[in-house]
Amino acid sequence: MSQTSSEKPMNAMALAQAIKTGQLSARQALNDCMARIDQSDGQVNAFTSRHHDRAVREADAIDALRASGAALPPLAGVPYAVKNLYDVAGEITLAGSIINRRHAPQQSDAFLVRQMQAAGAVLVGSLNMDEYAYGFTTENTHYGPTRNPHDKVASRIAGGSSGGSGAAVAAGQVSISLGSDTNGSIRVPASLCGVWGLKPTFGRLSRRGSYPFVHSLDHLGPFADSLESLALAYDVLQGPDALDPGCHALRVQLASGELGRGMQGLRVGILDGYFHDNATAAAREVVAAAAKALGAVDTVTWPDAALGRAAAFIITASEGGSLHLDDLRQHSAEFEPLSVDRFIAGALQPAHWYLTAQRFRRSYRDRVNALFKDWDVLLAPATPVSAPVIGTDFLDINGTQHPCRAAMGLLTQPISFAGCPVVAAPMWPTSTDSMPIGVQIIAAPWREDLALRAALVLQTAGLAKLKTVNF
Amino acid sequence: MSQTSSEKPMNAMALAQAIKTGQLSARQALNDCMARIDQSDGQVNAFTSRHHDRAVREADAIDALRASGAALPPLAGVPYAVKNLYDVAGEITLAGSIINRRHAPQQSDAFLVRQMQAAGAVLVGSLNMDEYAYGFTTENTHYGPTRNPHDKVASRIAGGSSGGSGAAVAAGQVSISLGSDTNGSIRVPASLCGVWGLKPTFGRLSRRGSYPFVHSLDHLGPFADSLESLALAYDVLQGPDALDPGCHALRVQLASGELGRGMQGLRVGILDGYFHDNATAAAREVVAAAAKALGAVDTVTWPDAALGRAAAFIITASEGGSLHLDDLRQHSAEFEPLSVDRFIAGALQPAHWYLTAQRFRRSYRDRVNALFKDWDVLLAPATPVSAPVIGTDFLDINGTQHPCRAAMGLLTQPISFAGCPVVAAPMWPTSTDSMPIGVQIIAAPWREDLALRAALVLQTAGLAKLKTVNF
Repeated sequence: MSQTSSEKPMNAMALAQAIKTGQLSARQALNDCMARIDQSDGQVNAFTSRHHDRAVREADAIDALRASGAALPPLAGVPYAVKNLYDVAGEITLAGSIINRRHAPQQSDAFLVRQMQAAGAVLVGSLNMDEYAYGFTTENTHYGPTRNPHDKVASRIAGGSSGGSGAAVAAGQVSISLGSDTNGSIRVPASLCGVWGLKPTFGRLSRRGSYPFVHSLDHLGPFADSLESLALAYDVLQGPDALDPGCHALRVQLASGELGRGMQGLRVGILDGYFHDNATAAAREVVAAAAKALGAVDTVTWPDAALGRAAAFIITASEGGSLHLDDLRQHSAEFEPLSVDRFIAGALQPAHWYLTAQRFRRSYRDRVNALFKDWDVLLAPATPVSAPVIGTDFLDINGTQHPCRAAMGLLTQPISFAGCPVVAAPMWPTSTDSMPIGVQIIAAPWREDLALRAALVLQTAGLAKLKTVNF
Repeated sequence: MSQTSSEKPMNAMALAQAIKTGQLSARQALNDCMARIDQSDGQVNAFTSRHHDRAVREADAIDALRASGAALPPLAGVPYAVKNLYDVAGEITLAGSIINRRHAPQQSDAFLVRQMQAAGAVLVGSLNMDEYAYGFTTENTHYGPTRNPHDKVASRIAGGSSGGSGAAVAAGQVSISLGSDTNGSIRVPASLCGVWGLKPTFGRLSRRGSYPFVHSLDHLGPFADSLESLALAYDVLQGPDALDPGCHALRVQLASGELGRGMQGLRVGILDGYFHDNATAAAREVVAAAAKALGAVDTVTWPDAALGRAAAFIITASEGGSLHLDDLRQHSAEFEPLSVDRFIAGALQPAHWYLTAQRFRRSYRDRVNALFKDWDVLLAPATPVSAPVIGTDFLDINGTQHPCRAAMGLLTQPISFAGCPVVAAPMWPTSTDSMPIGVQIIAAPWREDLALRAALVLQTAGLAKLKTVNF
């Protein structure tokens, strides 16, 4: 059983500073982290494995570096964890499945894990997710559901597919985690768990060494316990990767240093229409609060949001189904019962549907990009509702019945389909019994800096923040 | 009836020079060109329309510019023509079809037509092609076959799908033409017509304002009557185009100035295996002659050429079929009888086939690119044979029966599927009754300069050249 209080947790920045100044050793920080996981994960079920020996090695290396008098890298000694679709040397990459248990352990780390290691962070474990990232709820039948830390009776979903990554930060287990977002899989758990999440521009971060789902739509990105930690994690994750043909980040854009510029000159709009109609009162409330803090009054219409979502579904089902077709033929009984039918249906789609969706995407992207001539950031809820109870099949949103699991992506899919970067800011409506709903702060492709600057305004105003959960 | 002689034609460079120095007016050059077309096109059938008024305007503008004493652009007054899938303002873009006759005339020129206009070239007409570019023979049922100018009895194909573009240069009608190449549609007619052709790197030239066939594979490029003209045409066609998301040419690479460097340091290999097995004696003869002139002795194996071709077919059929599905449903009787069945079959393919082919392409490209660590250019025949007789259904290649029309792309498809730039050099085997076969000079992506330098060696040695046809 957990209790939610407003006590401020020690965030990644403060932790790195304490280690840098010798207030705390990296080894002690690791021990504290492991103890918190021990204490909470029986309830939360965020972790599917711990990497204890590796973590000790990495922490001790930081302490040795400090002892040598050398300068420490920016995240030195900060424990973090990754969605279990990231390759970790010596571990099997499960991607939420049992089928992958047959695979060999990985020879090397994912590119982003190497970036975190180079920044001094300490990898403590791998995190639960929807099987093969095909879901928005982390109701994983094989490994059990991840439970939302903010629900006193542990009955609610954490969101997905990066549910373990959202819940681990919300539960105070780690201050930074990595996830992936194909249609909303960072933003949905960030929203439902009340943590900071960043889905960067499509193509910004290398995906090498992560288990793929939808080549055309997969993004990787961080979760964090403060906006500054999120921006710093984003900074250290960046880097061109010639071995990932999908990584278009020729130039690293460091964003954390830009935060100080605040609201200066930012033009902020509020998405209406589809993004209003598919939001409950609580979701509208947090957007209104964010808009007020950002001085935003004008509404903006996102072009063809519903069609964008439909096209994203078609591409997701085709690419996902095709990727797993051999296993679907031979081992369908071992797939997640909640998604196996969708996988099979996806694999049977005609190429014409897929290609029509890809053609539509090109013109869609052009029309979305045109919005950003007039606006720097746009606001929308990240989810229509706060976290539903585990096992919910249908959901009422303003009088319309929706399949609950798919509905979690209603407001995220149209945005990622255009490739725009989004910060999910943790907000707290008055009407949801202390359960959070995130606000999407959306910028033009390659302008993460603008979304992060607007997000800092919400944090500074005390509106967007983590709330500590005591276990 | 035509006669082939070895008399050297006035090439684009010489023509531009004559106009620059006032030996010839642009108007006179245009009149000469139109007269040559009048004289030969009854036999050749390269042109589907002439743009007389526009050509006169463009030629007169060049003459006025010269009269004003201003410097002339590099192709000032040089007549050229384009495959009829290029948009020309005021004209309907037929793309070889009768269905497109229902379309409205274009409002503006294709990007590459604008580039040619800016370079001073004079557009005289649009050229025959396989319907919607789906073919290698230009046996167009609606507009009649284009006939190979080198065949004394006009019974042989010009190759396709840019058959009009190859034949127009071979017949001396124009010294430069533009075509497109999805699977070989520049290289095949260049080979069979004995003219210079360049298929640039995938993504090098903007495709805006050209009628699409296969978004994932379409390339545009020039044909010319000398290697220098080809390089100069390539130079003027380049330019970044923010409005074509498929154009990756951030930097213009001017190649004509590099030609003088010749063989200096070039490592040249000869493709074996698939490229030897699918070539007749005549095709092997021209590659051996080119290899000798380039000092090449080592053979190189292209990885998975047959699979690359199969994957290119699947992607072509899916994207082509999908693009035309509405018309296939409503107007199938108006399609080219030689390709309509393939279009319909392509539109019915499952997404899984398409996606498997695209996934294969990524690893294929990596393995092909790795070849170029050891080699600067690689040699292969452009076609297995010299031009077959119009109407040929089956072809024997070293004892194996092939469907003739598809077989014309046997040696080009694996190369373009990897995106490599290729110069097709016009070569003349001793064993084919004066019919040419081209040699593909293949370089790493973005290294057109290397292929052009090797090509100049063949031209300088007198091996690769045009032969004049008298009408």
